[in-house]
Amino acid sequence: MRSASARAVPEGQSLRTALVDPAIGEAIYSLASEIYPICRSITGPGVRETLGLLRRHIPIQTQEVPSGTIVFDWTIPNEWVVHGAFIRNAAGEKVVDFADHNLHLVGYSRPVHAVMPLAELRRHIHTLPDQPDLIPYRTAYYSEQWGFCLAHRQLEALPERLYEVVIDTTLQPGSLSWGEYLHSGESTEEFLLSAHICHPSLANDNCSGLALLAVLGERLSRLSTRYSYRFLFAPGTIGAIAWLAANEAGAERIRHGLIVSGVGDAGGPTYKKSRRGDALIDRAMTHVLRHASASSSILEFFPYGYDERQYCSPGFNLPVGLLQRSQFGTFPEYHTSADDLDFIKPEHLAASYSLVVSAIEIVEKDWQPLSVLPKCEPQLGKRGLYDAVGGRRAGPVESMAFLWILNLADGKHSLLDMAERSKLAFSTITDAADLLRDRGLIVDAGNRAND
Amino acid sequence: MRSASARAVPEGQSLRTALVDPAIGEAIYSLASEIYPICRSITGPGVRETLGLLRRHIPIQTQEVPSGTIVFDWTIPNEWVVHGAFIRNAAGEKVVDFADHNLHLVGYSRPVHAVMPLAELRRHIHTLPDQPDLIPYRTAYYSEQWGFCLAHRQLEALPERLYEVVIDTTLQPGSLSWGEYLHSGESTEEFLLSAHICHPSLANDNCSGLALLAVLGERLSRLSTRYSYRFLFAPGTIGAIAWLAANEAGAERIRHGLIVSGVGDAGGPTYKKSRRGDALIDRAMTHVLRHASASSSILEFFPYGYDERQYCSPGFNLPVGLLQRSQFGTFPEYHTSADDLDFIKPEHLAASYSLVVSAIEIVEKDWQPLSVLPKCEPQLGKRGLYDAVGGRRAGPVESMAFLWILNLADGKHSLLDMAERSKLAFSTITDAADLLRDRGLIVDAGNRAND
Amino acid sequence: MRSASARAVPEGQSLRTALVDPAIGEAIYSLASEIYPICRSITGPGVRETLGLLRRHIPIQTQEVPSGTIVFDWTIPNEWVVHGAFIRNAAGEKVVDFADHNLHLVGYSRPVHAVMPLAELRRHIHTLPDQPDLIPYRTAYYSEQWGFCLAHRQLEALPERLYEVVIDTTLQPGSLSWGEYLHSGESTEEFLLSAHICHPSLANDNCSGLALLAVLGERLSRLSTRYSYRFLFAPGTIGAIAWLAANEAGAERIRHGLIVSGVGDAGGPTYKKSRRGDALIDRAMTHVLRHASASSSILEFFPYGYDERQYCSPGFNLPVGLLQRSQFGTFPEYHTSADDLDFIKPEHLAASYSLVVSAIEIVEKDWQPLSVLPKCEPQLGKRGLYDAVGGRRAGPVESMAFLWILNLADGKHSLLDMAERSKLAFSTITDAADLLRDRGLIVDAGNRAND
Repeated sequence: MRSASARAVPEGQSLRTALVDPAIGEAIYSLASEIYPICRSITGPGVRETLGLLRRHIPIQTQEVPSGTIVFDWTIPNEWVVHGAFIRNAAGEKVVDFADHNLHLVGYSRPVHAVMPLAELRRHIHTLPDQPDLIPYRTAYYSEQWGFCLAHRQLEALPERLYEVVIDTTLQPGSLSWGEYLHSGESTEEFLLSAHICHPSLANDNCSGLALLAVLGERLSRLSTRYSYRFLFAPGTIGAIAWLAANEAGAERIRHGLIVSGVGDAGGPTYKKSRRGDALIDRAMTHVLRHASASSSILEFFPYGYDERQYCSPGFNLPVGLLQRSQFGTFPEYHTSADDLDFIKPEHLAASYSLVVSAIEIVEKDWQPLSVLPKCEPQLGKRGLYDAVGGRRAGPVESMAFLWILNLADGKHSLLDMAERSKLAFSTITDAADLLRDRGLIVDAGNRAND
Repeated sequence: MRSASARAVPEGQSLRTALVDPAIGEAIYSLASEIYPICRSITGPGVRETLGLLRRHIPIQTQEVPSGTIVFDWTIPNEWVVHGAFIRNAAGEKVVDFADHNLHLVGYSRPVHAVMPLAELRRHIHTLPDQPDLIPYRTAYYSEQWGFCLAHRQLEALPERLYEVVIDTTLQPGSLSWGEYLHSGESTEEFLLSAHICHPSLANDNCSGLALLAVLGERLSRLSTRYSYRFLFAPGTIGAIAWLAANEAGAERIRHGLIVSGVGDAGGPTYKKSRRGDALIDRAMTHVLRHASASSSILEFFPYGYDERQYCSPGFNLPVGLLQRSQFGTFPEYHTSADDLDFIKPEHLAASYSLVVSAIEIVEKDWQPLSVLPKCEPQLGKRGLYDAVGGRRAGPVESMAFLWILNLADGKHSLLDMAERSKLAFSTITDAADLLRDRGLIVDAGNRAND
Repeated sequence: MRSASARAVPEGQSLRTALVDPAIGEAIYSLASEIYPICRSITGPGVRETLGLLRRHIPIQTQEVPSGTIVFDWTIPNEWVVHGAFIRNAAGEKVVDFADHNLHLVGYSRPVHAVMPLAELRRHIHTLPDQPDLIPYRTAYYSEQWGFCLAHRQLEALPERLYEVVIDTTLQPGSLSWGEYLHSGESTEEFLLSAHICHPSLANDNCSGLALLAVLGERLSRLSTRYSYRFLFAPGTIGAIAWLAANEAGAERIRHGLIVSGVGDAGGPTYKKSRRGDALIDRAMTHVLRHASASSSILEFFPYGYDERQYCSPGFNLPVGLLQRSQFGTFPEYHTSADDLDFIKPEHLAASYSLVVSAIEIVEKDWQPLSVLPKCEPQLGKRGLYDAVGGRRAGPVESMAFLWILNLADGKHSLLDMAERSKLAFSTITDAADLLRDRGLIVDAGNRAND
């Protein structure tokens, strides 16, 4: 049974009104700025510190999975802790220092204390010769490596001398952490909203996604909803795998899902479909993006990217897509120190937030109308639903919404079907459908539209 | 069982030859000119007078439905009769007069006799400021309003004085009229051809459609056909609804349908599909228009327009599309006094007529061939069906038609399927199929193609 | 049960390595040059002489079908033998001589010995006024005609005198010949490879196809394959019809087929689909051509062309397509004396050969993987299948192949499905799949992919 959408939010208030306000972009930006400086990786104190800051907004529960735990084909690695790391010249000057920028240290670098000539050190140094002022982001999970990332100009300025290399890290049994919050709705069926929490100081990828979801969860937690909403903040790949291993059966409850990542830049928006390609979330996001922006892109699924890779593996095949602004890997700031707090903007964060809210509106409010008067058109005029003076050049948008709904109200078309076929916005259709239902012209066909 | 198409028309004469002649455009134009001056509305003497003129060509039976009759969600309104209407200035001059142009009076205006200043009168005056020389067309059905339509320059020329307004109309119980003619074919299944009869002096919309169908009906009535053909001349919306209410069960016999409206201007042609989108009439008209003109447009169904709205309501969902030249609402003359007898031309009327005849040819003549020699190609040369000297650069169109038919003659493809796949005209395919059947190379698979 | 592809070729050698070498284009060109001068027709000694030259490469068995034999709707004609043909002027000079170019004589010309003025002779002369230096190719099968083909300039140079016409041909009961070779594979299901052998001195059409298939058969005969491969060298139309009549039941074994014709010129490549349109050979050739060349064209089936017309007749409907470079009839050299040994090139022959080998690779090597670890991605890094340093801008092609295969390895997708969806080359996918199978990550789902 469908619940009346009116029950989803406080009486007389739309879901959108309850979730969006003019300061939302600033609120997300502010939280992203707070978590930006923290050095995160797939394990370690940075993840926990970040979860602590998010918890001020959303009542996250933290899960810890011990190192060595088998999760499907993978093993939870030792926990990585950085106490400091630098390269020092003979004059005792730190020429590269993790304290200056946490991208300087290759993620999961093992401890090192050695003196070596630049020629040997160079084999452990990563730069971007084509972007000589930027520090690249590199990791070395699941291998016993170490390294530094430098701006290429910084490397070129180093004389061919001996250098002392100090990497003061520990790689010891500990645990992997993730945080999650379940907002229970009428149904135990879930809408998964997930952001990866394993990247260090990269503002767009993915402080933007973490902050957006925390702010959304904060507001959504106050509302009654049809679906349950699961907010997940887990390290990329290994965190999603660990979560799925711990929720192998429960994953079936995920009826819709969005990975939210890189949602603060000026590009896109971009939606990458789930492996299914025709899931409701795929149709909803396609509709939402097409109406939101002429520059939007809809991509077919491909098995590379973020944690949709795991949710869409053949053994799960869940309806989980990916929302971004610019597509990962397609912009010069990607995975460099230029992905900083200047690269993301409150206005883009607010626009991305609005897209997610629109998708939520669709899954919450979709239903299948059945016309009470299916033979010929009902007379809208006598019900005040039609301009009384005919002969005008075109009916307004609202009139077209009435006509589309009544024409397709055979109990087989959902409101989203109608929005797609009419090219009208889902919100226009759903507002008109509410009015037609209030006037007794349509009823709910009784089957949940998106089941 | 399929009837041989040879029985449909006098021996040795094609359906097209029997229906089309070089003077057809002039004949339609002449009839349109006769009915153009009449002031029609959804009820009243203008409809009956128009039916009387059409009856000189086609044996229309008139139906009258009393005011107050409930037809689905609607009620037949009081009958509207205009005796005269004008605006007179203090000098006694009629500055606006219904006798000059019947568009001056808003349709269904209630009786008025009053004196008022221009400021008050202006609230009842409709003009087109962007087209200052044209009188707009406006109606006020189902409301107690009144008004005048003026060229904007005419309004601007009126001094701010007192004016006497006289609208000598009656709105009293009477009846709504429609006319129909059923040409009985072999089958009781029907092809509906309908034009709205409720617009006053608008030549394209819809004197053109009324005249085209009357002339077509005149010629078709002399032929034997596979299908029965129902010609319907009814007021827009309420007339179609009244007809459907009176024929609720019989409507199922409609297997193909065309609303014919605005078929005399230089634009288009335009075909708007039925709600089904893949009905035979949709495929036939798509084929016909694509072969007729590079400027043709095929539109998907949308629930705004002419009486296809009623036939395609979800409780009927009949295969009824709309044929026009320019799409309604897209040209400056639409619903103005510029839609006059100069706006329509015999040549365009003849071209539209030919499109309808082509659609009739398809539904009459379509069938599903079965090859008698399905293994390898039959030898066309020994039957005189192939150029005897081979090695030419390309086979002519007729040879390609033979080859396509024989290749697809598996009893599952209709001639229209073959025309679509080969991109050859249906007439080319059907002529070739007749020849192949005469030579005994194909037989009728026995199932009516378009059932 | 699927056979491991490793068994198809000598241990450690790919099918492509076993079939292709750098000299392949020259080998095909050389054989095409040998058979070019022979005057072939649909019957007669030219076909047998050509089969004799092909037999040096591939163990062809010759079939002879007597004149008068009924083959479906056709009858094997009398055998045509040319002893000589010329036009001689009053001075005793041969102004046109079959000995100079076998295109000078219209194929199947009946014997003639007569003296006539040019005015009368002209009715039997074919030229190309728009290409005045070229001799056209013309035939007159199944009719009692005769004629000469001349360069238009040659005709224009002839004075209006009397000429002696001598056509020393015989048209007597004999037989129609074709050659075929069956390479038996594990399965009795067949891949048909066919070229027409009835054209006289036309290098591209079809010395190129005959030579390509003979050279391919020579190399394929040394390998073990999954499928059986039938090589057929038969006269166009009547030869294919005779073969199908003799193999009416056996034709069902043809699971894939290619007509190979005009594969030596610089254009295309062009693949014309089978009547089915979605057969594996259609998908395979579409994939192969799209990856081979930006100038490739894929055409939907149409019932005109080469012997695919017979194989795709509705009573057989076999999955047989057509491979060409330039499409027949679209280039000025088509069916003229300009289709000579300068018009074809070893490099184009080699490229066409490679396309056929690629199609063979697909049908031989396609299978449906099933992931052993379908829940989440397997850890490629610990198996040495993934770059150990992450964070790079993009995974290399091989990594993408691994990810696509693992993502789609649900037992329902074949390797070709994966190649199509990923847009990666089939060879990239199959190499990656071999590696994943060797590492135990996928197994064969057990059903032959292309059954």
